[in-house]
Amino acid sequence: MPSAMTNTKRPRVVCLGTPKYAGAEYISQFSSEFDFEVLDATTHAETASKLPELVAKGPIDAFIIRMGTPPYEPFSPQLLGPLLPKCKIVTSASAGFNEFPVEWLAQNGALFCNSVDAVAEATADMALFLILAVLRNTSNAERSARAGTWKSAPGLVPARDPTGSTLGIVGMGSIGKYLAKKAAVFNLKIRYYNRTQLPQDQEARYNATYCPSLHELLGSSDIVSINCPLNAETTNLIGAAEFAAMRDGTFLVNTARGAVIDESEFKKALQSGKVARAGVDVLCNEPTIDPWFLEQDNVVVQPHLGGLTDVAFQKAERECFENIRAFFNTGKANSPVNLHLFGKQ
Amino acid sequence: MPSAMTNTKRPRVVCLGTPKYAGAEYISQFSSEFDFEVLDATTHAETASKLPELVAKGPIDAFIIRMGTPPYEPFSPQLLGPLLPKCKIVTSASAGFNEFPVEWLAQNGALFCNSVDAVAEATADMALFLILAVLRNTSNAERSARAGTWKSAPGLVPARDPTGSTLGIVGMGSIGKYLAKKAAVFNLKIRYYNRTQLPQDQEARYNATYCPSLHELLGSSDIVSINCPLNAETTNLIGAAEFAAMRDGTFLVNTARGAVIDESEFKKALQSGKVARAGVDVLCNEPTIDPWFLEQDNVVVQPHLGGLTDVAFQKAERECFENIRAFFNTGKANSPVNLHLFGKQ
Repeated sequence: MPSAMTNTKRPRVVCLGTPKYAGAEYISQFSSEFDFEVLDATTHAETASKLPELVAKGPIDAFIIRMGTPPYEPFSPQLLGPLLPKCKIVTSASAGFNEFPVEWLAQNGALFCNSVDAVAEATADMALFLILAVLRNTSNAERSARAGTWKSAPGLVPARDPTGSTLGIVGMGSIGKYLAKKAAVFNLKIRYYNRTQLPQDQEARYNATYCPSLHELLGSSDIVSINCPLNAETTNLIGAAEFAAMRDGTFLVNTARGAVIDESEFKKALQSGKVARAGVDVLCNEPTIDPWFLEQDNVVVQPHLGGLTDVAFQKAERECFENIRAFFNTGKANSPVNLHLFGKQ
Repeated sequence: MPSAMTNTKRPRVVCLGTPKYAGAEYISQFSSEFDFEVLDATTHAETASKLPELVAKGPIDAFIIRMGTPPYEPFSPQLLGPLLPKCKIVTSASAGFNEFPVEWLAQNGALFCNSVDAVAEATADMALFLILAVLRNTSNAERSARAGTWKSAPGLVPARDPTGSTLGIVGMGSIGKYLAKKAAVFNLKIRYYNRTQLPQDQEARYNATYCPSLHELLGSSDIVSINCPLNAETTNLIGAAEFAAMRDGTFLVNTARGAVIDESEFKKALQSGKVARAGVDVLCNEPTIDPWFLEQDNVVVQPHLGGLTDVAFQKAERECFENIRAFFNTGKANSPVNLHLFGKQ
């Protein structure tokens, strides 16, 4: 565990590029507590040339990396090397961190923190939007209006009402919980499948019924929403057997990751009517997705915008600052991802 | 006021065409209380020929007209004449009733009841859908995905998050109240304008702040939703002065009636950016609407599907039966529209 107290001066905190979403008032408050500075660089090359100059003026205690990292990549030891050995914490506004050398940072005494909650509620909003879109058949309705046929295109009237239907949530993490809370006002019954059952008080709060098996959830839901992380266990989680377990005419929404669903089986289910309509914010191989899904009238596609709202970006940037504030004020960062790697060579 | 007790037998209730949404269980329960029968006709001509035959077998005490009335129109005294003078109540699944001879029915001792609450919640769901669609810019996002540009089209990232924004509801009737309740879970602040202020307990229930003037509401809202009925006072309610009173970049949603908004001023506001994006389920002169609105990237159009869900249709059909049940059980129908016309010649 790195020590928060490197010196008696206010910790020097540098942000890679200008924070765009945290808010001027928030930044000025933070600046009154820390020696805050922006590294004015928009590319990897600029960063490589300017970071050493900045360090030459004095050691940097904490380093912030905002979202939108591609122009700065790769985050190599060469790029970040000048920060060490003084820098004790690097914080990122992204949830994923496979593009950062977190083990190398740990070996050099620096924590790495990711953003953990910023995009959860916005992603749940996208799931709710897609649920309403597939139930009410709004994309076909808009095409009918634009084609000049108003509401006379087949299958628009009556639309499916959410009232009384059952929403099955696959993965009851923070996104699934936000979704359950929001879905309740549309009179949806909530069932969920999760590795571990929620405590009774949380099940009561979300009025959510636990299904001990995925197939039981799929067989008892009118609408299925995928809200689990992608990992070895969840890759192709929804395959031939899972589609077979679904009710005929199921509405399927995916705001997690495309690879959670086996896309060849997904196509069969959309063609057979097993899945009446699907709403997907994610597909495999983004952005070069399988164009077949774009050509289907019973698929509503969003280009992976789930978590990309102004408020989510503000939360993500502020999580970077809050990790640093917590670390220097309490000695403990909020969401370190490489603490377990400290001391390993 | 017509007397409910015409004879000692169970009242004879006839439905024009087969109820499709009330539900078999519901119909069988109703049939155990009333002498229920279906007039098997799908057109005006069929009805004109079969209704007299049905009456010849015995008087009809109550008559039900389901939604989807165009094939049966006009509902002329000639068509409905055979029901009289015995028929005491005619109920319709539609909210509007300008296509029915309600004064003539009153003059002949028959109540006419419309449907009052069936479509309210489904319409609020459509308003909520359109609010999410315009904030998250989903129609442009789907076009970008279908065009192969995924999320790289301008203006998609970041999307506007509902959290912390203010929703101004114009017309706090049953639809406006459902909308306020649902919007709360998206962390929207609720303000409303209405002819009369709600009682304090209702304002507390909906966490809604009253604006004594329309312009004050428009000037203090990020999102404006039109939820008032169309009448002489609300025709062109939103005109040049009202758009001028709005914040720049307002999101405008209309699920009421197209004519509540002055469409020439609406166009100017969409072009100037005064209205950032609009979501409309209604426009003037449906279905032959002004095609200009269909060609705009900042307008999401739905073909007046607000109330047209399976559950709304079920509620509407059941309101027809419940009006009759209430009339014969208590002497008072739930939603008569022509009671004030009784006794007038």
